[in-house]
Amino acid sequence: MSTSASGSPIRAAIINVTGYVGAELARLLAQHPRVEIVCVTGRSEVGKRLPEVFPHLWSLDLPIVSEVDEDVDVIFSGLPHAAAAERLTPFIEQGTPVVDASADFRLYDEETYEQWYGEHPSPHLLPESVYGLPELHRDAIAESRLVGVPGCYPTSAILALAPLAAKGWLDGRTVVDAKSGVSGAGRALKITSHFSEVDSNFSAYGLSGHRHQPEMVQELTTLQDRADGDRELSVTFVPHLVPMTRGILATCYPSIADGSLPENSAERAEALRDVYESYYADEPFVHVAPNAPSTKQTLGSNACIVYPMVDPMTGEVMVISAIDNLVKGTAGAAVQCFNLMFGLPEELGLSKIGVYP
Amino acid sequence: MSTSASGSPIRAAIINVTGYVGAELARLLAQHPRVEIVCVTGRSEVGKRLPEVFPHLWSLDLPIVSEVDEDVDVIFSGLPHAAAAERLTPFIEQGTPVVDASADFRLYDEETYEQWYGEHPSPHLLPESVYGLPELHRDAIAESRLVGVPGCYPTSAILALAPLAAKGWLDGRTVVDAKSGVSGAGRALKITSHFSEVDSNFSAYGLSGHRHQPEMVQELTTLQDRADGDRELSVTFVPHLVPMTRGILATCYPSIADGSLPENSAERAEALRDVYESYYADEPFVHVAPNAPSTKQTLGSNACIVYPMVDPMTGEVMVISAIDNLVKGTAGAAVQCFNLMFGLPEELGLSKIGVYP
Amino acid sequence: MSTSASGSPIRAAIINVTGYVGAELARLLAQHPRVEIVCVTGRSEVGKRLPEVFPHLWSLDLPIVSEVDEDVDVIFSGLPHAAAAERLTPFIEQGTPVVDASADFRLYDEETYEQWYGEHPSPHLLPESVYGLPELHRDAIAESRLVGVPGCYPTSAILALAPLAAKGWLDGRTVVDAKSGVSGAGRALKITSHFSEVDSNFSAYGLSGHRHQPEMVQELTTLQDRADGDRELSVTFVPHLVPMTRGILATCYPSIADGSLPENSAERAEALRDVYESYYADEPFVHVAPNAPSTKQTLGSNACIVYPMVDPMTGEVMVISAIDNLVKGTAGAAVQCFNLMFGLPEELGLSKIGVYP
Amino acid sequence: MSTSASGSPIRAAIINVTGYVGAELARLLAQHPRVEIVCVTGRSEVGKRLPEVFPHLWSLDLPIVSEVDEDVDVIFSGLPHAAAAERLTPFIEQGTPVVDASADFRLYDEETYEQWYGEHPSPHLLPESVYGLPELHRDAIAESRLVGVPGCYPTSAILALAPLAAKGWLDGRTVVDAKSGVSGAGRALKITSHFSEVDSNFSAYGLSGHRHQPEMVQELTTLQDRADGDRELSVTFVPHLVPMTRGILATCYPSIADGSLPENSAERAEALRDVYESYYADEPFVHVAPNAPSTKQTLGSNACIVYPMVDPMTGEVMVISAIDNLVKGTAGAAVQCFNLMFGLPEELGLSKIGVYP
Repeated sequence: MSTSASGSPIRAAIINVTGYVGAELARLLAQHPRVEIVCVTGRSEVGKRLPEVFPHLWSLDLPIVSEVDEDVDVIFSGLPHAAAAERLTPFIEQGTPVVDASADFRLYDEETYEQWYGEHPSPHLLPESVYGLPELHRDAIAESRLVGVPGCYPTSAILALAPLAAKGWLDGRTVVDAKSGVSGAGRALKITSHFSEVDSNFSAYGLSGHRHQPEMVQELTTLQDRADGDRELSVTFVPHLVPMTRGILATCYPSIADGSLPENSAERAEALRDVYESYYADEPFVHVAPNAPSTKQTLGSNACIVYPMVDPMTGEVMVISAIDNLVKGTAGAAVQCFNLMFGLPEELGLSKIGVYP
Repeated sequence: MSTSASGSPIRAAIINVTGYVGAELARLLAQHPRVEIVCVTGRSEVGKRLPEVFPHLWSLDLPIVSEVDEDVDVIFSGLPHAAAAERLTPFIEQGTPVVDASADFRLYDEETYEQWYGEHPSPHLLPESVYGLPELHRDAIAESRLVGVPGCYPTSAILALAPLAAKGWLDGRTVVDAKSGVSGAGRALKITSHFSEVDSNFSAYGLSGHRHQPEMVQELTTLQDRADGDRELSVTFVPHLVPMTRGILATCYPSIADGSLPENSAERAEALRDVYESYYADEPFVHVAPNAPSTKQTLGSNACIVYPMVDPMTGEVMVISAIDNLVKGTAGAAVQCFNLMFGLPEELGLSKIGVYP
Repeated sequence: MSTSASGSPIRAAIINVTGYVGAELARLLAQHPRVEIVCVTGRSEVGKRLPEVFPHLWSLDLPIVSEVDEDVDVIFSGLPHAAAAERLTPFIEQGTPVVDASADFRLYDEETYEQWYGEHPSPHLLPESVYGLPELHRDAIAESRLVGVPGCYPTSAILALAPLAAKGWLDGRTVVDAKSGVSGAGRALKITSHFSEVDSNFSAYGLSGHRHQPEMVQELTTLQDRADGDRELSVTFVPHLVPMTRGILATCYPSIADGSLPENSAERAEALRDVYESYYADEPFVHVAPNAPSTKQTLGSNACIVYPMVDPMTGEVMVISAIDNLVKGTAGAAVQCFNLMFGLPEELGLSKIGVYP
Repeated sequence: MSTSASGSPIRAAIINVTGYVGAELARLLAQHPRVEIVCVTGRSEVGKRLPEVFPHLWSLDLPIVSEVDEDVDVIFSGLPHAAAAERLTPFIEQGTPVVDASADFRLYDEETYEQWYGEHPSPHLLPESVYGLPELHRDAIAESRLVGVPGCYPTSAILALAPLAAKGWLDGRTVVDAKSGVSGAGRALKITSHFSEVDSNFSAYGLSGHRHQPEMVQELTTLQDRADGDRELSVTFVPHLVPMTRGILATCYPSIADGSLPENSAERAEALRDVYESYYADEPFVHVAPNAPSTKQTLGSNACIVYPMVDPMTGEVMVISAIDNLVKGTAGAAVQCFNLMFGLPEELGLSKIGVYP
């Protein structure tokens, strides 16, 4: 598919607009110069106008319908897993390009999917889906009609560690200690998202195993395998809840194979930095920063800021990355993939500058 | 001045980019399709690159200089009062269009200015400056070369009350109980902006008199005078500090002249609503909402959401308005005025949709 | 009832310990030197241990039961209205002292109650209940066996305005613009208490009429009537939601009868201050502050900080008060009343010092 | 020294009451049943009354003086390092018991101190100072006249890891990924504590080496050495800033020597838990929780909640701990040590129950 930066609008539908992913898709697509949102669907809110549910979308006065009832050029889905594959399958089969924000088209291995999410509604589609991380799969995305947008945590962790995996340097246990704003838990009511419980409070969660871990393993292992098939990597992933709405910071403690980097401290830091700058040299949205990032630097933007460093006390490598979980972590990544799928400039409709402070 | 929506870039300078107003101007202008930022100045940070001070502007890698050292088509200033007039006067006198975010070109009356801010550095320029609220002064702004962007509180209060003042209905005391995020206090360090003091805390301030009150009186009185010279209005303005970064909510309790609106409760509410909807019918950024707004609905956007209502317990009129203090309250208003001054579409480079949640 | 400050423990039950009011009662009573909590009841959580529901109460390892199944000397109830009266009536009728945090025993007038809350389960008990604001009803509380703890907003507003009402000075419309932390909305899940909706956000609510308004009118009118039967007062009450968990700030704009205070600005301020300092001279928990308070100054404490002032711009009187809604606004007030009812020192088990910062 | 729980008040001075540590000492000591605060000193605020600086201390109306000018039984110091040792040395030398919250009496090794803090003003006092962590040094504290209260991060990390170190199991690299509220950075103004910079934001800091790391190494190594002199441990410590005022959560990823715990997953978890429960069986303030703690569970209290677990994905041990940095992390620990030094019940004047929510 190839399309120029101007031209007739691309007609888009957003399925399940009533969650935070859906609302963020609406915000981004409404401001995308080539897109016209022609249809938004919901479940419980069918019959209302979009601004009744999300008053910040007052200028996007569309009815919330139950089914995609318009001819559309592309479908964005904000449905949760299982429901997504089920609902999207007919569209995929009839050839409509689909960008899905659920977990249904992220894991290439059906068994892994089943272990974490239960039976897959449409396993026959897995072979043609592409993991929607342009930094790793740009060409495949451009040629695909079915993209599974990565989980927000995996995006932060994989972009932090990909340059090391691509060298084949990961060796043994990597700890990903990640911290997320509460919007990652969605709009559904639960006591763990209740304001008074979360405000001025900080905690770890998902300690019995988090669904985003296998995505990290899948992508890092794939990268690593291409470079060096021998080294095994494991990922200990611990997510935490930060009393803020948006943003993920991943502090990664990789174990690097001996000899990968110089021993000398200054050389080591410089060599590490070179690896990252060279790996991300042409990426529009990944910034290898000279200092540790903070999440708000990315708020509302599609940026991922990565900071690799050597611990002065122990000589160990550490990498910190920051994203907005709802943008580069979900809806922005969806738009970036869509741009690629439709041959548009990759940055169209997306910002690199966070709303700061 | 008249310019089309496409064409060669308009060269802009931002004076004092190192405060929050300057940084927000940089964010908006960097994404403005017709603007090229060619020069940013600072004071203490001269010699650094912009992203060293504001890492969220990593994609805008300009040096911070001490003086505007490029040919520019327009100057935006984020300097505080007095410093602004002093620094801008030569540019104004040589004909460069100026949009100033300080208080220096807001008050038409030199004496009022002096009472609140001290001696004015360039009182001779006051007659040609225009109060940069497009909703009240669109034509004058379009013809002006010197715009004083309103204070953030006045923007919220005036837009909440203008439809009543334009009818000449304000009669006696209007209470403006306003609540602002902390960014309104700027980037300069002070104990009242220290995180641990402000977090999980709420307080009133400025109780011995706040500089934004005379702006409200100036604009509302001017409007009211056009409609009905007889009624006197007074404004009790109490600002409060909310533990959040951006946003202003103004809860306004106007006193309305008897007979202005029907006595019957349902008719009264409907008539009030009609006044607001008709007054703001053609405004791109003012939304008369069907429910009370919240500040985050406007975050990062140039929207002002206004909600007029009748108190069911007492029959009194109340009006609530919400803005992002750094956008519609300052930098966005500056861009909106700039668009008018340069004959560009008024909405160019500005969003109506808040970054929500 | 008269009891000394030491002696055998007073056996207390907390009904509905599983809400925020119940949990706060547990926190305060567990640290009260004369109380032993012998029984805590819940509804959905029956069968669990208290720390399973509230891990911060790990040192208070009691089972949550469905009914008060122990001999108790006093009952504290954190049930909502209607459920409270229903459940408490048998205890009240058999003579067990009851401190109820619901609205059921606050309004003396059955009709007013019905208008706001529906039918009262036990209207025959209303004549013997006392409004649990010790600053207004200390003696009656000490002699009562049934106390209705005031609503959190009324506590803040009444304590702010009582000195004026007691003089008979309120004349016409008083605006109470109040701001509360989110815990006031309780532990029940709702979208308006969902973290991502409330965080970094500020809004008004309850605009179609709030149940706490008639309490304010009841108490202020009673006070005023004792002083001067002629003047009518009305209360416009607008609550707002602050992105924080605890605390209420009430900014009150009373209308004062002409001639009540001197016209001269300095004298006026001093006379106003004298009225407040004299009214609250002997109160252990009400502090007439020399500057405007902030809510966090009272966090976790039973203090109410009041600041009366004269607006320098208009000469109008304004009064600001701050409390912790869960302590002086609810559970602390309950303990203070309990101390009075049992002849204990009024301050026992209560703090005057907020957890600040 | 031995004193009973009742008796004549113990006269205390607080040096440098005007920082957050000083203010928290004032809050706790003012409510301590055996203490009378007779003197509080400051630097810039000398001449003011304490409530002028900290309005939440309105009930503690003491003058802020420049020097301890009263006979006192004990001195608490909230001065920063170097200033503390300098100011306290005369008191220590004349035999007044001193509890110091600075780093001056924490590190037993003068060289280590110098490396991190510069020259020590009174190195001759180091041999008699005791590290004020009662869980590790109860007897020594009880017999000491000079206690150095641990840093807040070390308290959280050491209590999380002590049971493993005491077994001699730590082997190689332990990662301590710690997250703190902003009050840990103190009351001095800096851009990194400026509300708008920190709010809704999350970041790592101290990446070039943090002064609290050597304390962790000192205490864990000492413990480990007693158990097994052979294994070397290293600590990678990365602190993060959470947009909240109080609280520390430390997520610890220790490397455990092979064979320390059973391989079988269920047995492993149970054995680990036994180690912790037995180690902390008699501790009044350390709670080994059945679930991961959150910081707010400890707010305002002296509790440390510890949660040891086995990662189900990798079998690795992880330990999470939570404290209030200003209480168990500083001022509460000071009071706990003071109680021991004066033969008072260890829990006197301290709470185990957090102010939650």
